Amino acid sequence: MTTTDEPIDHASVQNQMTQGDSPELAQLYRDFEAENLIPLWTQIDDLMPMHPQPKAVPHVWRWSTLYPLAQRSGDLVPVGRGGERRAIALANPGLPGRAYVSPTLWAAIQYLGPKETAPEHRHSQNAFRFVVEGEGVWTVVNGDPVRMSRGDFLLTPGWNFHGHHNETDQPMAWIDGLDIPFSYANDVGFFEFGSERVTDYATPNFSRGERLWCHPGLRPLSGLQNTVSSPIGAYRWEHTDRALTEQLLLEDEGQPATVEQGHAAVRYVNPTTGGDVMPTIRAEFHRLRAGTATPTRREVGSSVFQVFEGHGSVVLDGTEHKLDKGDLFVIPSWVPWSLQAEEQFDLFRFSDAPIMERLHFDRVHVDGGDR
Amino acid sequence: MTTTDEPIDHASVQNQMTQGDSPELAQLYRDFEAENLIPLWTQIDDLMPMHPQPKAVPHVWRWSTLYPLAQRSGDLVPVGRGGERRAIALANPGLPGRAYVSPTLWAAIQYLGPKETAPEHRHSQNAFRFVVEGEGVWTVVNGDPVRMSRGDFLLTPGWNFHGHHNETDQPMAWIDGLDIPFSYANDVGFFEFGSERVTDYATPNFSRGERLWCHPGLRPLSGLQNTVSSPIGAYRWEHTDRALTEQLLLEDEGQPATVEQGHAAVRYVNPTTGGDVMPTIRAEFHRLRAGTATPTRREVGSSVFQVFEGHGSVVLDGTEHKLDKGDLFVIPSWVPWSLQAEEQFDLFRFSDAPIMERLHFDRVHVDGGDR
Amino acid sequence: MTTTDEPIDHASVQNQMTQGDSPELAQLYRDFEAENLIPLWTQIDDLMPMHPQPKAVPHVWRWSTLYPLAQRSGDLVPVGRGGERRAIALANPGLPGRAYVSPTLWAAIQYLGPKETAPEHRHSQNAFRFVVEGEGVWTVVNGDPVRMSRGDFLLTPGWNFHGHHNETDQPMAWIDGLDIPFSYANDVGFFEFGSERVTDYATPNFSRGERLWCHPGLRPLSGLQNTVSSPIGAYRWEHTDRALTEQLLLEDEGQPATVEQGHAAVRYVNPTTGGDVMPTIRAEFHRLRAGTATPTRREVGSSVFQVFEGHGSVVLDGTEHKLDKGDLFVIPSWVPWSLQAEEQFDLFRFSDAPIMERLHFDRVHVDGGDR
Amino acid sequence: MTTTDEPIDHASVQNQMTQGDSPELAQLYRDFEAENLIPLWTQIDDLMPMHPQPKAVPHVWRWSTLYPLAQRSGDLVPVGRGGERRAIALANPGLPGRAYVSPTLWAAIQYLGPKETAPEHRHSQNAFRFVVEGEGVWTVVNGDPVRMSRGDFLLTPGWNFHGHHNETDQPMAWIDGLDIPFSYANDVGFFEFGSERVTDYATPNFSRGERLWCHPGLRPLSGLQNTVSSPIGAYRWEHTDRALTEQLLLEDEGQPATVEQGHAAVRYVNPTTGGDVMPTIRAEFHRLRAGTATPTRREVGSSVFQVFEGHGSVVLDGTEHKLDKGDLFVIPSWVPWSLQAEEQFDLFRFSDAPIMERLHFDRVHVDGGDR
Repeated sequence: MTTTDEPIDHASVQNQMTQGDSPELAQLYRDFEAENLIPLWTQIDDLMPMHPQPKAVPHVWRWSTLYPLAQRSGDLVPVGRGGERRAIALANPGLPGRAYVSPTLWAAIQYLGPKETAPEHRHSQNAFRFVVEGEGVWTVVNGDPVRMSRGDFLLTPGWNFHGHHNETDQPMAWIDGLDIPFSYANDVGFFEFGSERVTDYATPNFSRGERLWCHPGLRPLSGLQNTVSSPIGAYRWEHTDRALTEQLLLEDEGQPATVEQGHAAVRYVNPTTGGDVMPTIRAEFHRLRAGTATPTRREVGSSVFQVFEGHGSVVLDGTEHKLDKGDLFVIPSWVPWSLQAEEQFDLFRFSDAPIMERLHFDRVHVDGGDR
Repeated sequence: MTTTDEPIDHASVQNQMTQGDSPELAQLYRDFEAENLIPLWTQIDDLMPMHPQPKAVPHVWRWSTLYPLAQRSGDLVPVGRGGERRAIALANPGLPGRAYVSPTLWAAIQYLGPKETAPEHRHSQNAFRFVVEGEGVWTVVNGDPVRMSRGDFLLTPGWNFHGHHNETDQPMAWIDGLDIPFSYANDVGFFEFGSERVTDYATPNFSRGERLWCHPGLRPLSGLQNTVSSPIGAYRWEHTDRALTEQLLLEDEGQPATVEQGHAAVRYVNPTTGGDVMPTIRAEFHRLRAGTATPTRREVGSSVFQVFEGHGSVVLDGTEHKLDKGDLFVIPSWVPWSLQAEEQFDLFRFSDAPIMERLHFDRVHVDGGDR
Repeated sequence: MTTTDEPIDHASVQNQMTQGDSPELAQLYRDFEAENLIPLWTQIDDLMPMHPQPKAVPHVWRWSTLYPLAQRSGDLVPVGRGGERRAIALANPGLPGRAYVSPTLWAAIQYLGPKETAPEHRHSQNAFRFVVEGEGVWTVVNGDPVRMSRGDFLLTPGWNFHGHHNETDQPMAWIDGLDIPFSYANDVGFFEFGSERVTDYATPNFSRGERLWCHPGLRPLSGLQNTVSSPIGAYRWEHTDRALTEQLLLEDEGQPATVEQGHAAVRYVNPTTGGDVMPTIRAEFHRLRAGTATPTRREVGSSVFQVFEGHGSVVLDGTEHKLDKGDLFVIPSWVPWSLQAEEQFDLFRFSDAPIMERLHFDRVHVDGGDR
Repeated sequence: MTTTDEPIDHASVQNQMTQGDSPELAQLYRDFEAENLIPLWTQIDDLMPMHPQPKAVPHVWRWSTLYPLAQRSGDLVPVGRGGERRAIALANPGLPGRAYVSPTLWAAIQYLGPKETAPEHRHSQNAFRFVVEGEGVWTVVNGDPVRMSRGDFLLTPGWNFHGHHNETDQPMAWIDGLDIPFSYANDVGFFEFGSERVTDYATPNFSRGERLWCHPGLRPLSGLQNTVSSPIGAYRWEHTDRALTEQLLLEDEGQPATVEQGHAAVRYVNPTTGGDVMPTIRAEFHRLRAGTATPTRREVGSSVFQVFEGHGSVVLDGTEHKLDKGDLFVIPSWVPWSLQAEEQFDLFRFSDAPIMERLHFDRVHVDGGDR
């Protein structure tokens, strides 16, 4: 569905209504204020725009900037009970003073030094991690140790205890994504401290969740109850890479497999339902062939991309940004965007799309064709 | 599920971390700021509290105050294109400068003078009206004229054109409820102007939606597709009253019918699914027998009550407020509340519970027994 | 979806394969038989036809014949423990020896004499009653007495105890519909005797289920759990009649409301879901204006109609049958049918459509337009 | 839920009612018959038993018998248009004259000689194949060639064109499972001939469906629409084997992973929903450690097992049957059964459980504990 540009806007008409307020009207407004009341007619233009007018702005953060800052915090800031995590959040320039990448989403780089442990806790906020480089950390989710390696997508859904530990002599950094802004704005969050050390320092290659659930098309008979979030703790890079490779090969064979010409993509899903991994966060991985440009899209809801590999650019609201490995950018609601690949271009994406879809606010506009 | 009070809180530990920052750390924080970054460890205490700590506060607005102010605005402020509606919103004292009754919900008194018309428009925000007194206005929803009378609950789900007109020589006021704050915060709203006059000035007793859909247990064969929101435009007082009366009679007969002893209640539902009337808003009607006191509850999510009839009180976070007909109060997330009825006590309620449930953030704590 | 006539059929080709069997082949067939084996190639033509080829045939039973036979059985056959019910089933002439109106459905006339009681029992088979004439019987479903009156549709879903008693000096007859054939064929049925008398001889006008659930668009807060079958024990004629009347009035006003021109219809639904009243049985009521003829339809699955009021006819597989009040007819799977109304024509319908839809075998073909 | 043995049964009471019928009653029964009517009271004992009383009986078919008979048919019976498939069906001894392994399910051994092709067709009946031994055949499903190898489970859901071809110089046999009896009894089947040769003679290792869909936890963005049946054409043995191996290893590590001690099992699922692969057929694979014996179970609905590997036995209604590789047995509804493993024991299972669950007829009784 699309909306055409409106020649009339609220403001012009409303101004006629409000300018030159009479003394009686001025008094009425003061009386409203005294009674904790605010008239709609003075605010409707801002409150109910013709289409989403996000205060959040499109923005790019560079990995080449982020990582050294994370390193410096590794030297200066301890990780432990209280601060809980050495995470540095992307703060949208349009949402000053708040560590929010968008009104719903939180994105941060987290850094864990050699032999460090981030203590266990749990919270109703849903969380994931994505690893753009490095290895050596295990996250322990409800007692199940999960290896973190390059390209892996890892879940800690709401109210699961989790802590991390680095078993190596090298630091490791990754990105965290959460629904903290949404939870904070809507007053839904609970938090509970757990063990100050992780409850299991084992370092298996595969977590128990993977061993039970990562067999394509198969479901354990001991797990027939559907779960709100995915029971898979780690979505491994080898599977993601193979799925994308096959889509492009199928496209080469003339078969329908890609989203659009030259654009392969997978969504990470909860195997008990086929739906999103968590109730508030969608995660996907996109691969563009060299030379591919996607059509310009606008979507209700916000999302964040991180470049995993390759070179290319994103056009955000008409401005092109060159992108390198590790770079992150945010697309606020209804901001037009498209991707261009100079060489094979791999990008991780997460968004608040499940919120939009479950509440039926989702809309998409694609240049050259609506859906 | 409950959470016990936590002797340890984030703040104490985190303060140890942040106070007396070294020059290096101070410089790091300045560098973060320059790059639009904010560390988690300085904010986690506020961002991720042990349990919801809403900025919104419990508050009561008196109908005896609201109505005269609405009357005065009727004399001073025209209704028409631009301002669109003569609606005066309840502004939570904890959310200053915003016309929000809670972080998700908007509640307002709307006032339409004799022979006035509020022009047609549509928006993705979901809206309803509840009539605590008066009659004589018809709301026209997608061309279907719907009579508004005392006790009626009326729907204008997202993206339905709607306007109102008053056919009488008397003004009429009612309350509006919408998800404006949620839509605004999450950048999901679209708006479109329609006709400056309503498209149908007929004044039938029953709308077409009611005539098709308000037959208990029956569904038209021409309406077998489920709809996101209820196709019923008006839930009439006579049905609500009868349902509550029957519940109390059944209770007298020793049958299970009420929520708890002396407390009858109905939820307004979408007949195509049995679920909530709209994707973001739940609406209910509660009746307490004289002398009934409900157990103290805490719920994730916010709700607003309006007294329809009778005298009683609400205890909000330990403070008792006497209540009369038309009075409104808001219960922010996780604030303890209970109702007491001096005489038979009828209350309309609406809340953001569908948001909480669809995103699996819902929790309830009832004193003397969890569920 | 439609299927075109196939010029090739299995039989011709298969006959070439099987006729003139060699001695070796004959021996093979004997060896198959000895080992409880049967080859597909000799049976495929019958087993897997080009389209459904039901053994059940379309048939009409006359109320003027049924009722006197039921009366005679009232004089000769007691009702009580063991026989349980004085029910006389419609036996499809194409399914000889079986009291089946179709492969899935059972339909019977049940007759209860003055002051008689049919004892309580329960079974996993789903059951309903529809009353074409008479009154004075209460059916007691899980202890809830339900009045039975002309035009009412009454439920006893699987595994609910139920018995009936006639409080008057007049006999009463009605039709029963069950999924006995389906349950029998698929070995799913359980049965348990209850009280030899009904557990409550009260004769209220409205059952407790109705008092809780028959308020349009309202759901008791004490009943928020969805149920497999409808919690409504009785769907009253006054509601059905009003719904149909409104549809035709709306049609007169030029509004979309009817299935097709001159054809009003409602489906009886479970208010907790908006879906069918029971997992195996759909029930509907149809009203045709005088002079209306419906397009010829074919549907996968079988259904039974009973004329409630008016005169008209049905064309079943090309043969027209005149119909009067109380007459019943069955439409086996994929048999073409259409209805014609001489005067306003009211018909009750039940079918196995929920089975077909839940297992995704449903198909419909309408002459002059597919869906 | 369980049902206790009933001291009273229908028959005893009903016999009192029917024996020694008076001349009037005898005449009534003749009049019933003339009008295609049958009284319930003479049939209720058979029609509505206290618990399922299947006519189908438990039975074992030996692979050592089946395979040679299939070989002989390979020499004597051509495969081609008309007969369509060289499939020899297991005919339950309790259902004489019908090629039904149970009232709902069909099971057959299908045999394809060197270089043979079974022509393409499609039907609304749902079908699968399971390969207990051999290789060299490709089944072509809607144009997608699918390799068939030992241990693989292969789908041809309703209304998908499919044919098979054997590219080798060796014959190959496998088992077919379908819902033919259910479809036949309920008149739901459509059939259409396709190409007399398969439409694609390519012999890829992996089908296109696998390449798109067999990546654990990942869903192609080009396939976001849920499908009634699984889009996976082949569930490969290597995945099944690994999943079962992991379950037993996890059990060794003290983790919850198996159905019960020593009993690993997976269900084959539709990745778009997490539910059964097809609307009418459930498929599972079970592995018992040497020495494991399962508790005795009764279930509503019928199922068929085939031994894939190992030695053991099944106790069917109190009778023990020794089992070897390839042996098949059927468990009719509510018949008690348990498995015993002499050595590691691998069994494929399919059943009509989706029918039972979707229609809410499912019940299970486990000795020593109900669920």
